[in-house]
Amino acid sequence: MEHRAKLTAKGRATRERIVRAAAQLMAEHGVAHTTIKDVQAAAGVSASQMYHYFSEKSELVSAVVEGQSDQILGSQELALAQVHSIAELSRWRHLMVEAMRDKGCTGGCPIGSLANELAETDPPARARLEGAFARWQALITDCLTAAMARGELPPGTDVDRIALSLLAGIQGGLLLSQVHRDTKPLEAAIDTMIDYLRRLAPG
Amino acid sequence: MEHRAKLTAKGRATRERIVRAAAQLMAEHGVAHTTIKDVQAAAGVSASQMYHYFSEKSELVSAVVEGQSDQILGSQELALAQVHSIAELSRWRHLMVEAMRDKGCTGGCPIGSLANELAETDPPARARLEGAFARWQALITDCLTAAMARGELPPGTDVDRIALSLLAGIQGGLLLSQVHRDTKPLEAAIDTMIDYLRRLAPG
Repeated sequence: MEHRAKLTAKGRATRERIVRAAAQLMAEHGVAHTTIKDVQAAAGVSASQMYHYFSEKSELVSAVVEGQSDQILGSQELALAQVHSIAELSRWRHLMVEAMRDKGCTGGCPIGSLANELAETDPPARARLEGAFARWQALITDCLTAAMARGELPPGTDVDRIALSLLAGIQGGLLLSQVHRDTKPLEAAIDTMIDYLRRLAPG
Repeated sequence: MEHRAKLTAKGRATRERIVRAAAQLMAEHGVAHTTIKDVQAAAGVSASQMYHYFSEKSELVSAVVEGQSDQILGSQELALAQVHSIAELSRWRHLMVEAMRDKGCTGGCPIGSLANELAETDPPARARLEGAFARWQALITDCLTAAMARGELPPGTDVDRIALSLLAGIQGGLLLSQVHRDTKPLEAAIDTMIDYLRRLAPG
């Protein structure tokens, strides 16, 4: 953070270009298969520039985990800010399915993939990703709390646990959609949870 | 297959020892971080023995994907053969949660992890893992079909789609449990689906 505060605007732009290039390469080929040299070439920077910003691969991995978490959480925050009812959850589901379809069902969730690759080998990355998933769960909990306040769910529903279950369905749905090259698993996972919420409705 | 048929019993045992060592290293450190040399050392075989069975890493990866798929599907087949009702699904859920707890929530699903690492870089592995997930889904579908036959689910319930959704919950639940080092996400994912099935019950 301190390091970044000292960068000029141009320096920040270069650093961001490097992190974006690294994020893309790591999403395509995995963290292990991405070298500092690959990133340097993809970002179009010199070896000395690269070294100025990231002297070790671990620093680059950490910046990618932070960048991908912020990006996914940022877009989820925007989308979920529009959701105050179960019907609105269906619109959010539609956005995620379309995004997966647009990618031809290649690649899973960027932070899910990083979690899978780094959970056992990079403790700081695991801790950061744990925080990102907790924030994501909290965003879903807020939507379910709003739906409960509207009377769509019985008072006292354990919305935090249902949010965790919905997030698990999204992560597993994205992985299975990636493996099957088909959006069906993602659709089934979220639709089943939405149907569950409808069946909880009082009366 | 043809190659394997020609092996002696001793040769088969050596080959299996190599595949088991490779599977363990790949589960711990990822496929990319596991070299032929690491596997050779872990299996305690000579370089020429190693080369006799696996001349390229891709052959070893393929054998690990096949071995892990067979092992997971074999144990799921045994466990799910006991499940003919929604109540019996809870016992199966208990087994999976206990298995994750026994590992201290380290490592996710072996085939989910392989899928995440290989889906974009190894098309034959992706195809084989797709088959493994389809078989797993079919095993769950059989259980739900049995529950429907007992009258626990309304006739005509789309049990295949619910099975897919349950499998997504398991995969995402295992990943989140690994990241959080806590069985709660896996428990929430499966319990919510079991509660959903109970709420579908006629009458």
